[in-house]
Amino acid sequence: MTEVEAKKPQESLQDRLSQVIDLLHRHKLVEDLTHRQEGHHHELVENLVHRQNLAELQRKLDELHPADVAHILEALPLNDRLTVWQLVKAERDGDILLEVSDAVRESLIADMDDHEILAAAKEMDADELADLAPELPRDVVHELMESLDAQQRERVRSALSYEEDQVGALMDFEMVTIRDDVALEVVLRYLRRLKELPGHTDKLFVVDYDGILKGVLSIKRLLVNDPEKLVAEVMANDPVSFHPDDDAYDAAQAFERYDLISAPVVEKNGKLIGRLTIDAMVDLIREESESEVLSMAGLREEEDIFASVWKSVRNRWAWLAINLITAFVASRVIGMFEGSIEKLVALAALMPIVAGIGGNSGNQTITMIVRAMALDQVGTGNTSRLLRKELVVALINGLVWGGVIGAVAYGLYGSWSLGVVMTAAMTLNLLLAALMGVLIPMTLVRLGRDPAMGSSVMITAMTDSGGFFIFLGLATLFLL
Amino acid sequence: MTEVEAKKPQESLQDRLSQVIDLLHRHKLVEDLTHRQEGHHHELVENLVHRQNLAELQRKLDELHPADVAHILEALPLNDRLTVWQLVKAERDGDILLEVSDAVRESLIADMDDHEILAAAKEMDADELADLAPELPRDVVHELMESLDAQQRERVRSALSYEEDQVGALMDFEMVTIRDDVALEVVLRYLRRLKELPGHTDKLFVVDYDGILKGVLSIKRLLVNDPEKLVAEVMANDPVSFHPDDDAYDAAQAFERYDLISAPVVEKNGKLIGRLTIDAMVDLIREESESEVLSMAGLREEEDIFASVWKSVRNRWAWLAINLITAFVASRVIGMFEGSIEKLVALAALMPIVAGIGGNSGNQTITMIVRAMALDQVGTGNTSRLLRKELVVALINGLVWGGVIGAVAYGLYGSWSLGVVMTAAMTLNLLLAALMGVLIPMTLVRLGRDPAMGSSVMITAMTDSGGFFIFLGLATLFLL
Repeated sequence: MTEVEAKKPQESLQDRLSQVIDLLHRHKLVEDLTHRQEGHHHELVENLVHRQNLAELQRKLDELHPADVAHILEALPLNDRLTVWQLVKAERDGDILLEVSDAVRESLIADMDDHEILAAAKEMDADELADLAPELPRDVVHELMESLDAQQRERVRSALSYEEDQVGALMDFEMVTIRDDVALEVVLRYLRRLKELPGHTDKLFVVDYDGILKGVLSIKRLLVNDPEKLVAEVMANDPVSFHPDDDAYDAAQAFERYDLISAPVVEKNGKLIGRLTIDAMVDLIREESESEVLSMAGLREEEDIFASVWKSVRNRWAWLAINLITAFVASRVIGMFEGSIEKLVALAALMPIVAGIGGNSGNQTITMIVRAMALDQVGTGNTSRLLRKELVVALINGLVWGGVIGAVAYGLYGSWSLGVVMTAAMTLNLLLAALMGVLIPMTLVRLGRDPAMGSSVMITAMTDSGGFFIFLGLATLFLL
Repeated sequence: MTEVEAKKPQESLQDRLSQVIDLLHRHKLVEDLTHRQEGHHHELVENLVHRQNLAELQRKLDELHPADVAHILEALPLNDRLTVWQLVKAERDGDILLEVSDAVRESLIADMDDHEILAAAKEMDADELADLAPELPRDVVHELMESLDAQQRERVRSALSYEEDQVGALMDFEMVTIRDDVALEVVLRYLRRLKELPGHTDKLFVVDYDGILKGVLSIKRLLVNDPEKLVAEVMANDPVSFHPDDDAYDAAQAFERYDLISAPVVEKNGKLIGRLTIDAMVDLIREESESEVLSMAGLREEEDIFASVWKSVRNRWAWLAINLITAFVASRVIGMFEGSIEKLVALAALMPIVAGIGGNSGNQTITMIVRAMALDQVGTGNTSRLLRKELVVALINGLVWGGVIGAVAYGLYGSWSLGVVMTAAMTLNLLLAALMGVLIPMTLVRLGRDPAMGSSVMITAMTDSGGFFIFLGLATLFLL
């Protein structure tokens, strides 16, 4: 049974989460009882049960991979999360902190005193410290830096000097470097002396005496070639490498495209300073797609689903406020035509159809374009072609679906001219949606903004106000 | 200069794309001229220029990594795409076909004759053939299968027997297996005899004489341990492994969580049948997030941005039709209150604000929940808690922004009771949005559906109809 569990990490992960929640509930139930019952005898018994539950929970947690503990912490509301966090062995704190999301990490660190934080940080590598540092209290960071040796301190400083989305902020410093004038045999003996290789070591970095990168020796080649050969004969001379100020997303795409496991990071003069590994790139790919989804919906950042109400309100505030303004504008557009609506109240019932379908269609277009932009498929060369295609699709959809809804309007209100206005308005609004669906993300990119940012809110604003104006305007011109 | 380019693959990729487009344009310009000019002398000269351009383009393409050629093919409209495709050397066709997206692959295969397809497929491994097979003409697949040896044919059949989202469809069959009763020294000699190791070989698979997986020997351990030690002493006994019918997305999450490079796939009886590698998992993570974004917007599948108009129309058809029905329902809700609108036309102008903000807020909630579900953070244990939180956030936003818009309504129409109705309707509709934002994805999951599927269309339908009903209903009750 245990073997099967170990081989299906995902299934057992859900099981484990349930087990932890179950143990927590039993723990709380006992606490409630203890509070209610005042008799000394009862208290003793329940304390015992209570402690047994916690001990079992602790044992469960000790068996888990830090990434699994992190997952459980993220899926628990704040109170339960901190109960579990206090049960985790101190020496594992560091590993787990590195695995949780930023929002959850903040809640965990807030629960630790300086001494605990320092202990957790002691085991970390320079790049991990740099990850953590921005969220730590300033005096803790100071004390931490003091405790490092000069090289480590320099590395942390260097990693901290780059923006979050630059290669320099994601590189690590653990790598094996070799010279090119030795035999593979010597390399093999050297590795054996190291006792342990850094994670994701699929290649060794070949440098000269000044630390300039000359090539890479893949472990695969090291293993299959004659041990008497020299490194220089076997190594690849022109590996894919990155500069620390390169865009991290571009690096992630290169990892994906060329199926890399690790790659060297070099300074402008060719000096090797670190490496990127696939695990950091996978996290980045995941984060990138998350932030795309979130920003399309007008959410500012990843929200811990158990974040406090106040935090959630703040996260959603900005775009709701913008939406309020756009909705108000749409409302004023309708206000301009109040006279028409008073004369023909059917307009009020039909206008949201025009606006709604336009919004939906525009969202489809903008989603496509934002996707294609993220994949670097949209350049200056093909904008007009894309726009033309979207407009033709919109025209077809407008005539077909607009025709259907026009017929329905005729059926409901018995006016064929109302039906024609409906069809025309739908078609025009879908064309507007297509135009804006292409132009909004293109404009955002040209302004140096994220094309996904609130794009859904903006396109809906356009198709609402536009749809009302087109439909009510046509109706006023031709029906009244 | 070339060295710098090779070290910044991303920048040069954009450059390369521009270069290809540039060469294509020159090529077309010459073609245009050739068609227009009838004089023999001119034709000769232009044919020469023409051929020179194509030769230069071909040279450019030959230098590129198959993944880069694939990227260029995806970013080109159909005509240009096929021009470039014909220039690619035949022996590289297979590699490139495996890199492009399904939609683009279809357009390329449609341009090849059976003979070319067979030649391209000849170089492929069983798992690659299985990837390609569903898109090939049936008789080509038949001929292809005939040309394989029994083991390969069995592998292709096996890979084809699994669903697209199962581990079995993504595994490959190239791996190095060893026995546990030999010394590391022997393993090293064995590897050297292989001459080449499969890509992403970070571990060797230890099997017994029946092919049952007994453990894995990581290359790292192989390198740092004493060569005299036995495999059994050094190997890991209980590696993370998968069954071929496991969910591929769960496997990808396990790769992400445990930082895996490769992992064994075993049958229920423990027999090793293949392996998963990180490159397939990264592609899956990327695809998963793409399909999430697309399906939230009600797009059925990845759409090649240069897909034919007809294909695009079909892709967007289904959800537009659903949206038409929901919009019609909303319209009928308004229709119920036409009498009220006739008496107080301000209602027509104000009602889209209530509906619009509800839709936006509901989309924020549903995006959060769908995300959390994708990350396995939402289980049965915490639904009610989440719902409570979303409702409180909605209540606060409703009272605050509803209050603002109520005050504006009072300012515009001079009726404080209208303002109060507006505030109340906004608050109620935001509460409805929160409730539906949590319940819709939860219900979809319980029905075994993708929680992202058209969720944006559905929540908007709820908040539109609901918003109109609440606002017009309250207005009819209290204002008329």
